[in-house]
Amino acid sequence: MADRARAAGARFRPHFKTHQSAAVGEWFAAAGVESIAVSSLAMAFYFAEAGWQDITLAFPANPRRIDELESLARRANLGTITDDESVARLLRDRLPPSASVWVEIDPGYGRTGVSWEEPQRIVELARLIDSADGPRLGGLLTHAGQTYRAASADEVRAICTETIAKMQRLADEVDRAIGRLPEISIGDTPSCCLAGDLSGADEIRPGNFVFFDLQQLALGACEPDRIAAVAACPVAGVYPRRGEIAIHGGAVHLSKDTAPVGDRRVHGLLVHRTGDGWSAPDPAARVVSLSQEHGIVRIDGGVTGWSPGDVALVAPAHSCLTAEMFGSYLTTDGRRLERYDSRR
Amino acid sequence: MADRARAAGARFRPHFKTHQSAAVGEWFAAAGVESIAVSSLAMAFYFAEAGWQDITLAFPANPRRIDELESLARRANLGTITDDESVARLLRDRLPPSASVWVEIDPGYGRTGVSWEEPQRIVELARLIDSADGPRLGGLLTHAGQTYRAASADEVRAICTETIAKMQRLADEVDRAIGRLPEISIGDTPSCCLAGDLSGADEIRPGNFVFFDLQQLALGACEPDRIAAVAACPVAGVYPRRGEIAIHGGAVHLSKDTAPVGDRRVHGLLVHRTGDGWSAPDPAARVVSLSQEHGIVRIDGGVTGWSPGDVALVAPAHSCLTAEMFGSYLTTDGRRLERYDSRR
Repeated sequence: MADRARAAGARFRPHFKTHQSAAVGEWFAAAGVESIAVSSLAMAFYFAEAGWQDITLAFPANPRRIDELESLARRANLGTITDDESVARLLRDRLPPSASVWVEIDPGYGRTGVSWEEPQRIVELARLIDSADGPRLGGLLTHAGQTYRAASADEVRAICTETIAKMQRLADEVDRAIGRLPEISIGDTPSCCLAGDLSGADEIRPGNFVFFDLQQLALGACEPDRIAAVAACPVAGVYPRRGEIAIHGGAVHLSKDTAPVGDRRVHGLLVHRTGDGWSAPDPAARVVSLSQEHGIVRIDGGVTGWSPGDVALVAPAHSCLTAEMFGSYLTTDGRRLERYDSRR
Repeated sequence: MADRARAAGARFRPHFKTHQSAAVGEWFAAAGVESIAVSSLAMAFYFAEAGWQDITLAFPANPRRIDELESLARRANLGTITDDESVARLLRDRLPPSASVWVEIDPGYGRTGVSWEEPQRIVELARLIDSADGPRLGGLLTHAGQTYRAASADEVRAICTETIAKMQRLADEVDRAIGRLPEISIGDTPSCCLAGDLSGADEIRPGNFVFFDLQQLALGACEPDRIAAVAACPVAGVYPRRGEIAIHGGAVHLSKDTAPVGDRRVHGLLVHRTGDGWSAPDPAARVVSLSQEHGIVRIDGGVTGWSPGDVALVAPAHSCLTAEMFGSYLTTDGRRLERYDSRR
């Protein structure tokens, strides 16, 4: 991904919400990464504590937390995002010049951000932020999350091309109005993996690619052998008549998210251990239902060889949500990597 | 619920997996509760530490954790469950006489347990457990989770009546075969709330009723004013054209579980603050989609009055999963109640 960013001439600002681990962060630092994105204020403090100096909090700034935002901005070069005039004014008035404020754009996803169809509001927000000696106008930032609903890799590419074009038109409008060409920051992993040309972006913020998962696999954003995090779940029961095993891996471990596998939706697929890792996800061993602590895995061809106490490895539907449920990672060479715990 | 258990002549063993809080546990103790159920070994240790002396680990015993099970059984009267001969043998050989081992029965739900259609295996498991000077045969334990798929309160009642009847027949078979009438323990909150007659059970283990949620409301297991836990989510954005607000309340806070409201499925409904608590869930303010950190709330009638930084209160689809995502509770009178953190 660093290579793709370099080829596009874009800053690589990986989103650390997926792994949330200072130790994994060190691997990024070793690959030359200096800028990161996070999704909560507490996560930003965690990575600032770990030594990161250029952090974009890529979630709309909460005006109630302005004191903490200001305090964080005194420790690191803080990027914030907003789509709201009153919040923009507050950030402008309270954050130091080392901080930046980005205007968040909704490119048609329907989550947060000013709709790309409201260029005048976008211009006025940019003008408002740019009008004082406080924080810099970072630029225009977007997350084209509609790629996750795409039916094919080509559709992902089309969404990405269209998103960059929309952002460029908006950046040009801002430039014409206030005499400053804002940077363009784009996000989602499917776009960043699949797009032929990212050179229209000044910055990319993919997160999920650090682990990938069955959702990315279904979109064609990764190959089956690139899924880098699995949940180790003890086998709780073996049911030959049903062709199923039960695992201690429920909604509180895997999340209730699903991914398409063939014409079904699953919560995960088993992988099988190999000498130094694991196999591609096995479409014949599907996590078909979850309750709070239990998962049910249906295995085509029967459950021979499984016993209670065995450990099943589950490639999750959505690795961001699964990783969130665990306090640490175990590497294949036996090291324990801590991660930030949002519950503390 | 304590009154319902008393009326049925059944032991009340609330499942603490929903609240996972020693402080909430004290309220149960004050109501006379002495026996509890939990869903993981670590949770069992947490409540043993908090002083509970009669704990059933209502998840299939993991043979890899036999040392810790034995250690726990030296600190508290430990109940374990199994549906597997080799695990039953291990528990029998390793646990002390103060412990008990229950045979888990699948009453047609299709999760864990010996199928109720295999009475001979159930008898043999009971015989195996009962055959030594080790732990007691606790009895037959079941969770009729198929009530969660019921279309009406009457269907819940029918499932409960049928489940108790199945369990009684199995208990009689065990009694005939080994000369010991095993106790019957049943679980799910919908049954325990709605059943007219629980007197066929020796023990009930509901958990969710401590908070209730939109799933229970849809089943008719509670009234709208009985939902006792909501997620406090900062408003991240306000979108008048879409009739939506965005909240900092995503899949990692609310879980991706859903509940039916009318002919839709939602991740939650807003409640509105009242003097000393909150209103019934508002079907006009629906959490319609979630990503990792964001939730989208569609509000019929418009978003007037909402601003970024406001706090929206969300009645969750499934309170067990939502509570799991938070490190503590805040009571309506401002006290902070800690809870067990499975990620530590």
